[in-house]
Amino acid sequence: MKMGATKVSGSDDYLFHPQLLKNLDWDSVQNILNPAITNENTGEPWLLVRPLHITDYDKGYLQILSQLTTVGNVSKTEFERQFWNMYKAGGYYLTVIEDTRSNKIIGASSLITEFKFVHNCGLRARLEDVVVNNTYRGKQLGKLIVLTVSLLAKKLGCYKMSLDCKDPLIPFYKSIGYKLEPGNANFMTIRYEDSPKPS
Amino acid sequence: MKMGATKVSGSDDYLFHPQLLKNLDWDSVQNILNPAITNENTGEPWLLVRPLHITDYDKGYLQILSQLTTVGNVSKTEFERQFWNMYKAGGYYLTVIEDTRSNKIIGASSLITEFKFVHNCGLRARLEDVVVNNTYRGKQLGKLIVLTVSLLAKKLGCYKMSLDCKDPLIPFYKSIGYKLEPGNANFMTIRYEDSPKPS
Repeated sequence: MKMGATKVSGSDDYLFHPQLLKNLDWDSVQNILNPAITNENTGEPWLLVRPLHITDYDKGYLQILSQLTTVGNVSKTEFERQFWNMYKAGGYYLTVIEDTRSNKIIGASSLITEFKFVHNCGLRARLEDVVVNNTYRGKQLGKLIVLTVSLLAKKLGCYKMSLDCKDPLIPFYKSIGYKLEPGNANFMTIRYEDSPKPS
Repeated sequence: MKMGATKVSGSDDYLFHPQLLKNLDWDSVQNILNPAITNENTGEPWLLVRPLHITDYDKGYLQILSQLTTVGNVSKTEFERQFWNMYKAGGYYLTVIEDTRSNKIIGASSLITEFKFVHNCGLRARLEDVVVNNTYRGKQLGKLIVLTVSLLAKKLGCYKMSLDCKDPLIPFYKSIGYKLEPGNANFMTIRYEDSPKPS
């Protein structure tokens, strides 16, 4: 995060370094995507897979998340504060697909890593907040964005990656390698009251 | 983390501030524990609920985690490095029960929080790595340690807390308020090869 007087944002203002998305191990997941696309060759030259950027508030990042769940009235200042909270904490690999023709975010998924003591002080990975704009269906972008962050988790040395999902999405995640492990596939929740912040 | 020449560890060397565990909202979960114990009054004066401390390597923290899953050969240096990784990142509320008669860790559970953009830039909570030493069963310590970090999540303003669990543990978590939400109770995993570090 550079704070130069004239600098508002730039190539440094990604949530994580774009280089991390280079040379992912797509060979290990061949046959899942047909035709074979990757985050570096999405099949459409105008579709760009990249880390979340500080300017993505204006590119519709929250609008696309609102297809998943409640987002609420989040101001640009609040968005930026949370972006830097994630940046400082580390372990937040929020990844998006931008349509560079319209400068709009049209897909997203998040890899979150967690330090563990178990598994030799290992690193655990979680998949969160996967969404692709309806009007872009049929381009394998759901698989693309999930595989991108899954391969990033592998590259970072995570020993496992997991997700919580609704019943209708089970076949999708099975098709890209996720498993319901027998006897160990239960996701349980306590919900506390949402306390909306003043906007 | 103070690095004074003569200081090895002290009251500052907790993973999070012990004050956070004071005055949790035990009234909201009354009737779950009978007799009614809390993290501040465990029913046995020698059982202390507190944040993980940098010296807990020597108090058997990794040994108790090894009842859950593979820990591996983790040196004291590696333990301390991971402790400070968690400390610097923030959001790691690893909590233990110590038997102060033997200075041994006899129970543990972890709250991990995650910054979100959804839910008004909310904070999400996860429960991880719950274990109580077999020889201390029958003292409600499992419920105590899980409720302690669950109430801490509530105090921190988390909008939900979740966990992944094996089939036999479902009744336990149901008894303390966790739910399998219909249609949204699936936990899926990809496992990557564990690459043991040289010890």
